[in-house]
Amino acid sequence: MKKIIVTGIFSVVFTGSALAQSFPVYLDETKLIEERIEDVLDRMSLEEKVAMTHAQSKFSSPGVARLGIPEVWMTDGPHGIRPEVLWDEWNQAGWTNDSCVAFPALTCLAATWNPEVSLLYGKSIGEEARYRNKTVLLGPGINIYRTPLNGRNFEYMGEDPYLAGKMVVPYVQGVQQNGVAACVKHYALNNQEVNRNTTNAIVDDRALYEIYLPAFKAAVQEGKAWAIMGSYNLYKGQHACHNQYLLNDILKGEWEFDGVVVSDWGGVHNTEEAIHNGLDLEFGSWTNGLSNGASNAYDNYYLAQPYLKLIKEGKVGTKELDDKVRRILRLIYRTTMNRNRPYGALCSEAHFAAARHIAEEGIVLLQNRNNTLPIDLNKVKKIAVIGENALKMMTVGGGSSSLKVKYELSPLDGIRNRVGDKAEVVYARGYVGDPSGEYNGVKSGQNLEDNRSPEELMAEAVQVAKEADYVIFIGGLNKSTYQDCEDADRKELGLPYGQDAVISALAHVNRNLVVVNISGNAVAMPWVKEVPSIVQAWFLGTEAGNAIASILMGDVNPSGKLPFTFPVSLADVGAHKLGEYPGTPRNDGSNIVDEKYNESIFVGYRWTDKEKITPLFPFGHGLSYTSYKYGKAVIDKNIMGDDEVLTVTVPITNIGMRAGSEIVQMYISDLKSSLPRPVKELKGFSKVSLEPGETKKVTFTINKEALSFFDDVRHEWIAEPGIFKAIIAASATDIRSSVIFEYK
Amino acid sequence: MKKIIVTGIFSVVFTGSALAQSFPVYLDETKLIEERIEDVLDRMSLEEKVAMTHAQSKFSSPGVARLGIPEVWMTDGPHGIRPEVLWDEWNQAGWTNDSCVAFPALTCLAATWNPEVSLLYGKSIGEEARYRNKTVLLGPGINIYRTPLNGRNFEYMGEDPYLAGKMVVPYVQGVQQNGVAACVKHYALNNQEVNRNTTNAIVDDRALYEIYLPAFKAAVQEGKAWAIMGSYNLYKGQHACHNQYLLNDILKGEWEFDGVVVSDWGGVHNTEEAIHNGLDLEFGSWTNGLSNGASNAYDNYYLAQPYLKLIKEGKVGTKELDDKVRRILRLIYRTTMNRNRPYGALCSEAHFAAARHIAEEGIVLLQNRNNTLPIDLNKVKKIAVIGENALKMMTVGGGSSSLKVKYELSPLDGIRNRVGDKAEVVYARGYVGDPSGEYNGVKSGQNLEDNRSPEELMAEAVQVAKEADYVIFIGGLNKSTYQDCEDADRKELGLPYGQDAVISALAHVNRNLVVVNISGNAVAMPWVKEVPSIVQAWFLGTEAGNAIASILMGDVNPSGKLPFTFPVSLADVGAHKLGEYPGTPRNDGSNIVDEKYNESIFVGYRWTDKEKITPLFPFGHGLSYTSYKYGKAVIDKNIMGDDEVLTVTVPITNIGMRAGSEIVQMYISDLKSSLPRPVKELKGFSKVSLEPGETKKVTFTINKEALSFFDDVRHEWIAEPGIFKAIIAASATDIRSSVIFEYK
Repeated sequence: MKKIIVTGIFSVVFTGSALAQSFPVYLDETKLIEERIEDVLDRMSLEEKVAMTHAQSKFSSPGVARLGIPEVWMTDGPHGIRPEVLWDEWNQAGWTNDSCVAFPALTCLAATWNPEVSLLYGKSIGEEARYRNKTVLLGPGINIYRTPLNGRNFEYMGEDPYLAGKMVVPYVQGVQQNGVAACVKHYALNNQEVNRNTTNAIVDDRALYEIYLPAFKAAVQEGKAWAIMGSYNLYKGQHACHNQYLLNDILKGEWEFDGVVVSDWGGVHNTEEAIHNGLDLEFGSWTNGLSNGASNAYDNYYLAQPYLKLIKEGKVGTKELDDKVRRILRLIYRTTMNRNRPYGALCSEAHFAAARHIAEEGIVLLQNRNNTLPIDLNKVKKIAVIGENALKMMTVGGGSSSLKVKYELSPLDGIRNRVGDKAEVVYARGYVGDPSGEYNGVKSGQNLEDNRSPEELMAEAVQVAKEADYVIFIGGLNKSTYQDCEDADRKELGLPYGQDAVISALAHVNRNLVVVNISGNAVAMPWVKEVPSIVQAWFLGTEAGNAIASILMGDVNPSGKLPFTFPVSLADVGAHKLGEYPGTPRNDGSNIVDEKYNESIFVGYRWTDKEKITPLFPFGHGLSYTSYKYGKAVIDKNIMGDDEVLTVTVPITNIGMRAGSEIVQMYISDLKSSLPRPVKELKGFSKVSLEPGETKKVTFTINKEALSFFDDVRHEWIAEPGIFKAIIAASATDIRSSVIFEYK
Repeated sequence: MKKIIVTGIFSVVFTGSALAQSFPVYLDETKLIEERIEDVLDRMSLEEKVAMTHAQSKFSSPGVARLGIPEVWMTDGPHGIRPEVLWDEWNQAGWTNDSCVAFPALTCLAATWNPEVSLLYGKSIGEEARYRNKTVLLGPGINIYRTPLNGRNFEYMGEDPYLAGKMVVPYVQGVQQNGVAACVKHYALNNQEVNRNTTNAIVDDRALYEIYLPAFKAAVQEGKAWAIMGSYNLYKGQHACHNQYLLNDILKGEWEFDGVVVSDWGGVHNTEEAIHNGLDLEFGSWTNGLSNGASNAYDNYYLAQPYLKLIKEGKVGTKELDDKVRRILRLIYRTTMNRNRPYGALCSEAHFAAARHIAEEGIVLLQNRNNTLPIDLNKVKKIAVIGENALKMMTVGGGSSSLKVKYELSPLDGIRNRVGDKAEVVYARGYVGDPSGEYNGVKSGQNLEDNRSPEELMAEAVQVAKEADYVIFIGGLNKSTYQDCEDADRKELGLPYGQDAVISALAHVNRNLVVVNISGNAVAMPWVKEVPSIVQAWFLGTEAGNAIASILMGDVNPSGKLPFTFPVSLADVGAHKLGEYPGTPRNDGSNIVDEKYNESIFVGYRWTDKEKITPLFPFGHGLSYTSYKYGKAVIDKNIMGDDEVLTVTVPITNIGMRAGSEIVQMYISDLKSSLPRPVKELKGFSKVSLEPGETKKVTFTINKEALSFFDDVRHEWIAEPGIFKAIIAASATDIRSSVIFEYK
């Protein structure tokens, strides 16, 4: 005989609770998420709501512990999952379970021009984030490539809004399949690192809507991104993290974004603006946190005690607070509280294979005179590998995307592994760059010290090159400050560390010279005519060495194309030509630096097209070890009505001896417009695989959207009736065929 | 037109994987867990299997990251969820989200004699563990109370195997409802802290099976515990963490345990024994880990590289390894990979209420002459509270159960809150004990320094007591070393810090004296006759102050009873009387300390019954503010056949003026046996709530098991035919009624 004893205060809690499970609405999975959110909200105190809107540590923010609503844990991406840091310091926490796969940098992903590969990327990195129990992956980055000096371009997807938009959507979807939110960044107009916290970007509405926003819009509306990160800069005098125009009017208004706006770390500067102007979740405002002796520095965040105080004083209401909390709860229901999400995986075979595949598909063969590449190991006895980047780890450094990798295979090791005993591989340094990459005091662990003089290094390299059948120079930029690295811009377009002279010297002594440029940015190549083969190899991550070796030896036929223009000089770039980069400090006592985007919509190939500038290598350019013949494009109708869709078809034939994949591009040209328009704009692309001799028809559709521009007076997208041209091209300057049609 | 590009190595991985979700067996939730386990096992490398059998950090062990099998994260219990520590150091990690509810220590839970309350306890603490994303809660502790000197008794459930067994089962079930494994500890014979790593317990099979193992067996077979922790001591010359007899023969053999045997931290000492003798998961072997300069100290664990080496050399096979890994995978499927587990909650209102309720139901009113208690605030003007434990935090210190609590309400604050303005509450320290509790360098933060002399403190206390209507002395033990604290035993039964003299002096000046003894152990009370009211208040956790105030003021009618005997002196304890505690060092060069349990099965009341010793307070003793009349027990049949069950019924009447709950106990006495047996043994109890004047019939059933003893020659449980007595009692010495029956 058992009795249940019920006494005092406890009876309410105890009766029927220990065994019977009757769920409250917020835990009732038969209810709609929106209903469950309202139920949580009803149960929360004002203090709990305010707590939810700001960080509790470097990378986490609270849930509602007493209700069982999980915390939100962020992790830097976008190329791999950042190692654990201490609760309240940037220093690594010294865990041993947090080594990751480094996927290629997003410039490389964009260079694949393959949305399926982007889905694979997102799925894979999302699985890594999920295994590490992260709620939000801080990526992908999709700021438009406006100047080659931007230290953070390597994290982004190039200069074209259409390409970036098509590539970001599957990345977001792939990540979010895992019940991990993608946090698309940096919204918006964070197009340079110099003065990033103080630059007020002055951009006309056409450039804003046509160039800088479309990829974000695609991520939100097609990718259904659950989070977006506000950027450091200002727009219309308000910081982007609390910006009425960008966040309330456009993102949450026009685009109906129902996710969470997260601040970049330290991007919040004003409580009232943070309350009213669309920010939901504040992170990183004081990055010294508790370690600075405060009892809880997070209480001083703009959306912490200062917010609570304003509410308690009746100076602001709770409507904005409830909206923020609803969005954060929605994020939690979509992620941690989605019971069906998979378990993820870390450093799986599939992820290493994906990292290699993305790298191999993104490497761009820029130039290949005399078919210098691929290297036929049956005909070669000695290969000289020259250049620091043949050795240098590129996964540590560069800023917040710095990683702790399971391994990173260097280009030299990749080449050595591939060559094996088929030839001799000799190495010479050629030059010495900055010390090994580091981030927050964490160094790559590589010791690349070399105290020899530039002359000695060059002499050794030339000697080695003279004696070899092939010379592979592997240089470019790295992840040091003022190279491809967050928080500062490059100082020049040219290669650092005297590489130009080394390359010219090598070209002088060996005509079988291959230059592999490792960078996330365009670089000047004054030696372009001296060097037969040039490969753009990006920051390739864990499988860098294997991917580069596969391309060089021809195991993989190159199929990447440039996602941004390589200009000959900075004078060929609108942002520099029109002279306002990096902006002009105001004379009003503020620290604001105004920067007018005088080039407006004319970014990248839109600028070189308009100005009739021949670039070093154009947007969309990339060679193959085979050749493709483009047939004549055919359009199904010559007149397009308002809701109609046209179809353009072009046959592509592999006329070479190897299988390969060609990225076929379709640009639209508006032959006459009431407003200035680019000469042409990318509105379609397709990567098509072809066996030798095989022909495939590639079909593009054209709808009204492809013809439209943003009318800044009417504040809407307009397709003006008139004559248009659909251009089929192998790059922005390699037009193969075109058709004319009329829009009525 | 979209094409999927498939090239090289990647094709195998990529084809159909990015979008189509065809699950492998181990992720297929339509498959049985055992089938899924085998599928994981088939995919694992030898190295991965070995890695899974030992820690990777202080409190975690690896899963299989590349397959998405989650890691295992442990947390100390058993009274609350331990704060995060650094990856590889005992120091706290400085997180701010890990404050918990401190539930009362398990001695208090046992004193409730209420399995429903134990279920509530387990459910509540399991929810806290789940919210903190812990896989395994290191608790409950159920080692039998053999000596009142054991520094860790406060974490256990008393001296009686039947009571501990009935109380542990719902705790385990409650925890595991959350998809969090309970890890029952410390298995087995870890009955003291002095020499805990070197004591070789020499125990006859009767004491082993009848006294020390039954609660573990109940936890495994009825509670279905998913994990068990090996203890530090030795048995039959083998450490308990790798012990053929305890682990292989009994736990996994006789009891068919299918869970994981986890070592206590540092309890592993030998690779071959760890392989063969039943250990599954090694933790804490080197507690200095990485911080000691090693690249990965965990590689040196007994089940790490040394294990791998033996396998690779062919010296051991992989049968044992596969068994260990199967068990660990089973644990993971039962916990983290159970999609249906709830989300838990931390510091919820329900948890605070549960903590208070458990405390209120576990406090034992030991003595209450002249109805000194409860205190009627309508009749009292001034209350003197005296004693350090009225102030002292008890949740920090004591060893691994040390907590970081959301709050801990002191007894003094609880009394002050309850009394409000109805009376004046004055406080005097009375004595000064050890500095505030600490554990691994973390202190309670309390500053209780007081440099006055004992004489000054006593004089102040006496003065304050003289002027008060009531004196509440709140003393006892604390969580300092040599008190109720891990890793050392108490040095004496008496109260420390001169409290006896203070109490006597107070009794001398005020006859309305209440002594509240806060401890997890019995203490000597030489002043027992001088003090009218004595309350045993345990370590009550977060709600200590409220619970004590509720009892003292009569808001709650005491209903707890002692789960262990309070002896007058150590000479009244078998382990001490027979003289082998704390054991005898061997003379063989080893560090082993042999300790023969000469008292055998005669532990606690079994010893005092046999030796006819009158205890200070007996097992099962506890008073109420009301009185209960026990009617005459009636048995349904006088003869019991082999498979039959008898029923004993007794009416209990509340003959006082208040509602209350009485714990009615049934003991069985074997009047004649071929082997020595205790005078009586607890075989049933029921806690019955009664309104004033109400009578309820309490019914106990008696089956063969209740009559059995362990025949150490035949190695089985035997019920010998003969005459038995069923005794109905209010405590082990307060027999109210009995019935005779014959077992045939």
